Amino acid sequence: MHTPKKIAIVGSGLVGSLLAVYLRKRGHEVDIFDRRPDIRNIEFSGRSINLAISTRGWKALDRVGIGDEIRKIAIPMNKRAIHVLDEPMYFQFYGKEGEAIYSTSRGMLNRKMIDLAEQEGARFIFESKVWDVTLPEATLHVGDGPKEAWENHQYDMIFGADGAFSRVRHRMQRRSRFDYSQKFLDTGYKELTIPPNTDGSHKLEKNSLHIWPRGRFMLIALPNLDGSFTCTLFMPFEGENSFESLKTEEEVQSFFEKHFPIILEDIPNLMKDFFKNPTSSLVTMKCFPWTYWDKVALVGDSAHAIIPFYGQGMNAGFEDISVLDDLIDIYGDDWETIFRQYELQRKPNTDAIAELSYRNFVEMSSKTADKEFLLRKKIEKWFSGKHPDKWLPVYSRVTFSDQPYSEALQIGDRQAKIMDEIMKIPEIEDNWNSREVEEKILELVKISD
Amino acid sequence: MHTPKKIAIVGSGLVGSLLAVYLRKRGHEVDIFDRRPDIRNIEFSGRSINLAISTRGWKALDRVGIGDEIRKIAIPMNKRAIHVLDEPMYFQFYGKEGEAIYSTSRGMLNRKMIDLAEQEGARFIFESKVWDVTLPEATLHVGDGPKEAWENHQYDMIFGADGAFSRVRHRMQRRSRFDYSQKFLDTGYKELTIPPNTDGSHKLEKNSLHIWPRGRFMLIALPNLDGSFTCTLFMPFEGENSFESLKTEEEVQSFFEKHFPIILEDIPNLMKDFFKNPTSSLVTMKCFPWTYWDKVALVGDSAHAIIPFYGQGMNAGFEDISVLDDLIDIYGDDWETIFRQYELQRKPNTDAIAELSYRNFVEMSSKTADKEFLLRKKIEKWFSGKHPDKWLPVYSRVTFSDQPYSEALQIGDRQAKIMDEIMKIPEIEDNWNSREVEEKILELVKISD
Repeated sequence: MHTPKKIAIVGSGLVGSLLAVYLRKRGHEVDIFDRRPDIRNIEFSGRSINLAISTRGWKALDRVGIGDEIRKIAIPMNKRAIHVLDEPMYFQFYGKEGEAIYSTSRGMLNRKMIDLAEQEGARFIFESKVWDVTLPEATLHVGDGPKEAWENHQYDMIFGADGAFSRVRHRMQRRSRFDYSQKFLDTGYKELTIPPNTDGSHKLEKNSLHIWPRGRFMLIALPNLDGSFTCTLFMPFEGENSFESLKTEEEVQSFFEKHFPIILEDIPNLMKDFFKNPTSSLVTMKCFPWTYWDKVALVGDSAHAIIPFYGQGMNAGFEDISVLDDLIDIYGDDWETIFRQYELQRKPNTDAIAELSYRNFVEMSSKTADKEFLLRKKIEKWFSGKHPDKWLPVYSRVTFSDQPYSEALQIGDRQAKIMDEIMKIPEIEDNWNSREVEEKILELVKISD
Repeated sequence: MHTPKKIAIVGSGLVGSLLAVYLRKRGHEVDIFDRRPDIRNIEFSGRSINLAISTRGWKALDRVGIGDEIRKIAIPMNKRAIHVLDEPMYFQFYGKEGEAIYSTSRGMLNRKMIDLAEQEGARFIFESKVWDVTLPEATLHVGDGPKEAWENHQYDMIFGADGAFSRVRHRMQRRSRFDYSQKFLDTGYKELTIPPNTDGSHKLEKNSLHIWPRGRFMLIALPNLDGSFTCTLFMPFEGENSFESLKTEEEVQSFFEKHFPIILEDIPNLMKDFFKNPTSSLVTMKCFPWTYWDKVALVGDSAHAIIPFYGQGMNAGFEDISVLDDLIDIYGDDWETIFRQYELQRKPNTDAIAELSYRNFVEMSSKTADKEFLLRKKIEKWFSGKHPDKWLPVYSRVTFSDQPYSEALQIGDRQAKIMDEIMKIPEIEDNWNSREVEEKILELVKISD
């Protein structure tokens, strides 16, 4: 049996709400503070890349019995649909038969998660701004402004689930020996929408993540339940083909005519969306430590914010919670050990997914249309099909397994070295599925093991 | 002619005071805010690694005619004096005949710099705490506490010279697309003192930087004018031979008896110093951008804090000021261009000195006693002496020239690769100064050029 604690969670986003469910199941008293109004009562306004739930996310949801509720609002995508300019669209399947990632709207998912946490007995306190935290006393300082009078709320424990620009972390950051980095991409993003057909059906193939790769910029689209697609345009802030270079309706129109002609007719609100929706930035944030004694811990983006190009941000945040829960199973009420083990276990893994996400940014924007890259993927896939015990691609390890991210990264590096060798084989483009290539890979796999 | 501006500098440290002198010489109105009391009126209490002024620092001081004033309070050190345990002390000269770095006490130097800035007409406002900055209006918010009433002081321009934990940068940091990182070493430091002999003379050779390298920890000592040495013990925070492991007087006594037996008698106040002086941490801080429009700019540690193992922290900060002054010569009143060029020119160079400082940390603590390392240095020195036009060691480039740090780093990397090859020569320890080795280096230098 566990001693029930009085716990505050700062942030009612996806990870905060999931943590609330977990902690309520363990019998703790849980208050969730959020500076914003209840997302269930407001129009969710688009500055969100749609989410793709994969294995790690489902595992964390299923473990507290809420996976099936969420499956109702998710659409499986078993492939990328790739739209190269002036070429026919083609598919790249993500994994084996039956494997898929699940598109879901952040707003819809968040509303559902808050409902579920509330049903478990968590108490949400919205429009309540946390300005500071006294770490050793686990006390939140809440008020209307940084210079207004603050109310102090003391807890046994505080979790910071307040995102990449976390206030809770902000306080920890000012301590000595706190490592911290934030690094922005020169690429930003803007949300656009492809509405449904008049009969409510999807304008594009429904069970795909659509990508229009264009080198330094790209457009992606993820399906929604209502027949629409949420699109995201990723593009540099400055330079040629940049957000800065698209200032007038004429510029936007001719940019889309030139680079995304086919999609243009599917986005009737292009001008409205383009000039109304903000241009958002993308940050990788790393820090350490994530905890303070047995008093305060960071979870999700407040501990490790990554760029979205592996579709793992939320999944990694959800995995924080299932790892915490595993540790509670082992260490019971010894929260100091739970917190210490939590940060030590998770840190190398979230560093690894940050690295993998960055590499996928390069891959998605520039290489998905690259012939040599496609051949590599084809060979990997062919070999993996023949020898699934010898070769599981890193994408599958990240997306369709719960192998630690750091192991997936390491194995991926080894596989990349092997593929570098294979690509040197003369006339590999013609012999790629030969007995000789198969033998060579088997030999290299053996050496690298 | 320049338009005189109303300029605020936040921070009355070394770089802030030097900047004040420069700006006054250009006819600007200059106010310097500092949250601390006037350092000239207080006992400077030791938590400072002594400073070593080298070429870049002197250049910046001489350019506004204050170098000679500072030379009066500096002691030349032309060599390292290396004290390996149970071996005779030996010297490593830093450069050529006549080349030296100059030991000076931070407190004494800072007092002098403030005097000089005041003489130029800068106005110092001490015990005045800047809590926030409104960047686009160049307005400082000053008051007794973050929640007290603030006075607002508007300027044409603000410089943040307020150190590694800068308040001015703190405000810039919260903007989107501001890259930032702070990384702490697991090694901390503590100041100790070797007092003068009763006749006022130095207990150790005066014109040397003394080092007692001991692998993961080390002690260094720099001479002061009064015959004392300021010592710094660098040591891991945790683990074997760590600050954490030295909790009692007995532990400290036996640690020094074992590792620094000869020095023990020279530090009569060891116990008092050890337990009174704080254990401080060492941070590398990087950020970008350093400026906001033509309104705000960061200089010195607030833009680039480095660890002290190359003795370049203050020198790099002073060089910021001479680079700024060069740009003012070129761009006149166009402060937006001055600021933009300043950050673009300086950033790669301060990143390079951060990297070099980190490498020197490894070198000083573990390699100064390493036979292979010493042989490498000996060969470099011998070859450099024979072919000064072909080989200037990276240490000399950093310390005794004003070549951009990034070039010094690059050339250093090239030289290291050449030395890797040379060290592979069979029986190099016997043939190190042979004709064959000389020819080989000449050949490799030619290839790498």
